[in-house]
Amino acid sequence: MNAVILSIGDELVLGQNVDTNSAWLSARLAEHGVMTLWHHTIADDLEATVAAIRAAAAAADLIVVTGGLGPTADDLTREALAKVLGTELELHGPSLERIRRRFLEKLGRPMPESNQVQALCPRGAEMLDNDWGTAPGVRCRVGRALLFAFPGVPREMIPMFDRYVAPAVAGQTGRTILTEALRTYGAGESTVAEALGELMKRDRNPMVGTTASNGIITVRVRSDFPAAAAARRALDETCAEIERRLGPLVYGRGDASLPGALGELLKARGRTIATVESCTGGLVATMLTDVAGSSAYMLGGWVVYSNELKTREVGVAAELISGHGAVSEPVARAMAEGGLRESWADYALALTGIAGPAGGSAAKPVGTVWIAIARRTGRTTAERFQFPGDRDVVRDRAAKAALNLLRMELLEEGKATAGRPQA
Amino acid sequence: MNAVILSIGDELVLGQNVDTNSAWLSARLAEHGVMTLWHHTIADDLEATVAAIRAAAAAADLIVVTGGLGPTADDLTREALAKVLGTELELHGPSLERIRRRFLEKLGRPMPESNQVQALCPRGAEMLDNDWGTAPGVRCRVGRALLFAFPGVPREMIPMFDRYVAPAVAGQTGRTILTEALRTYGAGESTVAEALGELMKRDRNPMVGTTASNGIITVRVRSDFPAAAAARRALDETCAEIERRLGPLVYGRGDASLPGALGELLKARGRTIATVESCTGGLVATMLTDVAGSSAYMLGGWVVYSNELKTREVGVAAELISGHGAVSEPVARAMAEGGLRESWADYALALTGIAGPAGGSAAKPVGTVWIAIARRTGRTTAERFQFPGDRDVVRDRAAKAALNLLRMELLEEGKATAGRPQA
Repeated sequence: MNAVILSIGDELVLGQNVDTNSAWLSARLAEHGVMTLWHHTIADDLEATVAAIRAAAAAADLIVVTGGLGPTADDLTREALAKVLGTELELHGPSLERIRRRFLEKLGRPMPESNQVQALCPRGAEMLDNDWGTAPGVRCRVGRALLFAFPGVPREMIPMFDRYVAPAVAGQTGRTILTEALRTYGAGESTVAEALGELMKRDRNPMVGTTASNGIITVRVRSDFPAAAAARRALDETCAEIERRLGPLVYGRGDASLPGALGELLKARGRTIATVESCTGGLVATMLTDVAGSSAYMLGGWVVYSNELKTREVGVAAELISGHGAVSEPVARAMAEGGLRESWADYALALTGIAGPAGGSAAKPVGTVWIAIARRTGRTTAERFQFPGDRDVVRDRAAKAALNLLRMELLEEGKATAGRPQA
Repeated sequence: MNAVILSIGDELVLGQNVDTNSAWLSARLAEHGVMTLWHHTIADDLEATVAAIRAAAAAADLIVVTGGLGPTADDLTREALAKVLGTELELHGPSLERIRRRFLEKLGRPMPESNQVQALCPRGAEMLDNDWGTAPGVRCRVGRALLFAFPGVPREMIPMFDRYVAPAVAGQTGRTILTEALRTYGAGESTVAEALGELMKRDRNPMVGTTASNGIITVRVRSDFPAAAAARRALDETCAEIERRLGPLVYGRGDASLPGALGELLKARGRTIATVESCTGGLVATMLTDVAGSSAYMLGGWVVYSNELKTREVGVAAELISGHGAVSEPVARAMAEGGLRESWADYALALTGIAGPAGGSAAKPVGTVWIAIARRTGRTTAERFQFPGDRDVVRDRAAKAALNLLRMELLEEGKATAGRPQA
C-alpha cells in the first residue's frame, strides 16, 4: 500500500510557511506499513489542485490532502474534489448544524455566513466530523485511490488522521508493524548510539534508530512481522534491552515528556516543587504546569528578571549580585534557597544565565547558565552549564537540564530507598 | 518566469526530516519575481527522479533540485540527469581535483574512493564549484527549462543558490513579485475576511489571502507587476488599506511577534511590566522574555499556582479565594494589584482560569479565564474570557489575550496622547 501527500496553500508555495504536515503524515503512514511515494505542495489554485489529485490517484492507493478547507475564497479543495469526481457541491445539513453549534458553544457567537461554505460536500463524497475546528474533512474514492482531505492546521489535522485514516489502513497491508519511541535526556545522540551498538544495524528486525530534536534523543523501534503476537513480543524484548543499556537516560515512552516524568516522581514520593528563574523567564514553570494535574506538586515560582526582584522577592543579598554578578554560583544558590524558604516546597530549582544574544563576556559567554537545587533537607547544590545555540535554544536546554537534574536525583534516591532494609 | 522545486531524499519522504529547503527557495525566488508552481518531494529513486524532472521541465522555466548528490549508492541525481538528457556520466577532472584538495586541506585526510562519484558530470551539463562542501552542483538545460542541482544540506545549498541562481534569474523575469505578511490578533479568520471583503477576490492584484495558526491570523499580500516601483506602490497601498480596515488588530508585519509588539510599545513609552499567573503557569512571562532585550521593560513575575502562594506572595486575601473561588474577578484583580505593589512596575497582568482537562464546572467550564490589568495610575480592570480547545490551547490563547489586552490599551493611550494639544 502506498500513498501520496498533497499540501495546499499559497503560503507554502510562496515559502512563507514551512510544511510540517507532510513529514508528520509520512512518518505516521510508515508506522502503518504505508510507503509514501511523494509529497506535492501546490498553491491555492483550482486547476493545480485538480491536476495534483489526478496524478496522485493514478499512482497511489491512498491520498491525504491537507489545506484549502477554510471559509475564504482561496479555499478551493472542496471545488477541486467536485471537479475531479465530476459532480457538484451540495450543502451538507448535519455539517452546517455542527459548525453553527461549534460557533455558539465554543466561540460564543453566531456562525458568520462565510463559514457556510465549509459545509459544502462534493456529491458522492462523505463529510468527516471535525471535533477540533470548524472545517469538516472529506473522504471519497478517486478511481481506485482512497482520498482523505483535512484542514491544514496541525491541531485539527493530527486528531482527524488518527480518527479516520489510521483505522482505514490498519489491517489492509497483511503485515503488523508496531513501533515504539523511547525518549531520553541527558546524553548526545552519538553517546546513545554507542550504547545501543549492534541493536542499530540496518538489517535488524525490530529496527532501531535514533533522532534528535530539541535536545531530546528519541530511540525509535519498528517491529515488522506477519503475526501480531510475534511483532509485539519482538518489540517488547528490544525495548527492554534498550532500557537496560540506557538506564536512567530513558525518561519515558511515546508521548512522555520530561516535566511529566519528573512530575510522576514527585507525585509518587509526595514531594512539592517551586521555581526561581532569571534567564529562562518562566519557561521551567511553564513546562512543569504544561502537565495536567501538576498542581499536585507544583506550588509556583518567581520570575526574577530584574536584580531588584531577585533581592526583594527571594532575598538574594544585593552584595552577592554586585560582588559575583547575577550569573554566578552564589546567586544561583541564594535564589534556590530563597525560593525554598518562600514557597515551603520540598525542592526549589533556580536558574540564572546569559540567554543572549547580548550580555556575554569572555568569562561568561552567551549560553552560560548556573542551575541550583535547594532542598528541604537543607542541602543546596549548583552546577554550571554551557549551552550552544541561540536565545531560544539556550533557554530551552537550560530549562530541560534543570528538570533533568532533579529527575536524576529522585531516581537515585528511589534506588537508595528501595535497597534499604525494611524498618 | 516560474519555477518548480524538487527535493530528493528517503528521509524526507519517510517523514524523518522536515524539508525546509523548499520554503526557503520559494521565498528567495519570489523576491526575484519567480513564482513557484509546486514543490515536489521524492525518494532516492532513479525512476521517480527522472519522472519528476520531466514533469517540472514541461511546466517551468526554472528547476531547482536539492539532494541526491552525496557519495553513496542512494545518491542518484547525477544519474537521473544523465538519463533525462539522454547522455552519459563522465568524470570531471577539475571537480575531482577540488574534492581531493578539500579532503586534504579541510578534513586532513585523503579522499575516500567513494567520493569520486561526486565528480561525475552528465555530458552537456556544467559542474558548479561548491566552496562549502564536497559535492559540486550541476547546471543544465532540460528542454527550455534551466535546471540547477545542489546538495540538500542547507549550509551548502544556500550559498550556492546565492552564487549561481540569483544572478541567473535577476532581471530575466520582466516581473517583480513582492510579498508582505500582516499579523493580526484578536479576531477570528472569518471576521478578518469579512473586514477585508473584496480585497480577497482571487483575481485581484495585489492578491490578498488569510491563514490561521495558533490564534494568529496572518493576512498575506502578493503584488505582481512588471515594474518594481509599481509592485512596491501597489503592495504599500494594499497593506495600508488592510491596516485601515483591520485597525489595531494588526500587530506587525513579517516576523513580528505579539509579545514583541507589546514590548515595543512599552519601550517607546518607558513603561515596565510584571506578571502574576495561575492557569498559564509562567507562559506569559516566558513569552515576554522570549524577546531579546525584554529586560528593558519586563521586571519579573509570579507563578502562584497554589492558593497559599496567591495569598503569601501577592497578598490575595484568603477570604477572597474561599468566597469567590480562585477563578474569579475579585481574585484576578487582587493578583494584579498585588503584583503591581510587589514589582513596582507600571502594569501588572494577572491570569486565573481553568486550563483543564479537570477542574471545570457548569458555572466555570474548562477554558474560563479571568484576565486583570493593574496600573500604576491606580485603575484596575478585569475581563472574563472563554477559550475553546484543550489545555495547551487554553493556556496559549489566554496568554496571548492578556498580552493583546495591554497592547490595545497602549495603542489607545498613544492615540489619545497624540490627539492632545501640546502643553
